[in-house]
Amino acid sequence: MKTAPAYPPAIQKFKELLNDVEVCMLLTTDSGGKTTSRPMVTLDVDRDGHIWFFTNELSDKVQDANKHAAVALIYARPSKNIYIHINGACTIVRDKAKERELWVPPLTEWFPLGLDDPKLCLIRVVPDEAHYWESTLSKMVAFI
Amino acid sequence: MKTAPAYPPAIQKFKELLNDVEVCMLLTTDSGGKTTSRPMVTLDVDRDGHIWFFTNELSDKVQDANKHAAVALIYARPSKNIYIHINGACTIVRDKAKERELWVPPLTEWFPLGLDDPKLCLIRVVPDEAHYWESTLSKMVAFI
Repeated sequence: MKTAPAYPPAIQKFKELLNDVEVCMLLTTDSGGKTTSRPMVTLDVDRDGHIWFFTNELSDKVQDANKHAAVALIYARPSKNIYIHINGACTIVRDKAKERELWVPPLTEWFPLGLDDPKLCLIRVVPDEAHYWESTLSKMVAFI
Repeated sequence: MKTAPAYPPAIQKFKELLNDVEVCMLLTTDSGGKTTSRPMVTLDVDRDGHIWFFTNELSDKVQDANKHAAVALIYARPSKNIYIHINGACTIVRDKAKERELWVPPLTEWFPLGLDDPKLCLIRVVPDEAHYWESTLSKMVAFI
């Protein structure tokens, strides 16, 4: 019997934390240097530790990300005292196979046309560092 | 009988949202342009809409804030679908009277010496714009 290879420890820890908080605030910076964040549902953290989201190609965050790839992901769940800050680089990805792999039915709330929506695209964030807090304890974990 | 004057509507709304989520991620930018955020307990939103925190004068966030006053506050409570992003300007304040006004006993976890702790200081954030989301509805509110 084969078992899937384990995730690297830092990625495994992040995936465990995400079980409690799948919505993050994706923080982008506009051309004037102003930061904005908005709630985003995390679709997947893959074996390389890359974090995936669906988005609308016409949205402000895609325009920001195209000009300024450095983004942050902020996960907070006060009721469980879990807080995570991730810095990383963001890429807009158009990949129908990956979209099919990550699609889940609740996304129709944002994309009524589903996978056929011409505005649908993916955001991939490649983390370069992350901090997390559990309870009152401050810890730091490097993803790469 | 006198009643206290009402808060301006935008500030009143923000105070109501804070009843559900008092911990935010305070986002600062270091001299290299890298963003960092960490959980902070919101002590007060005053009548002018200024937001107050206690902090340690020697912490990285104070060093960041002294060089780069533009900060963001990110409040998230996934269990109630409440998300808030505030951009503002940050000032480090040393004011014993204000510290006495805002002090609450749980702060001794971070400042065992209490109000006599020489590293104790206040952070005041003056918001210039804020976005908030409740449920799936996106709204925007200007504080000034």
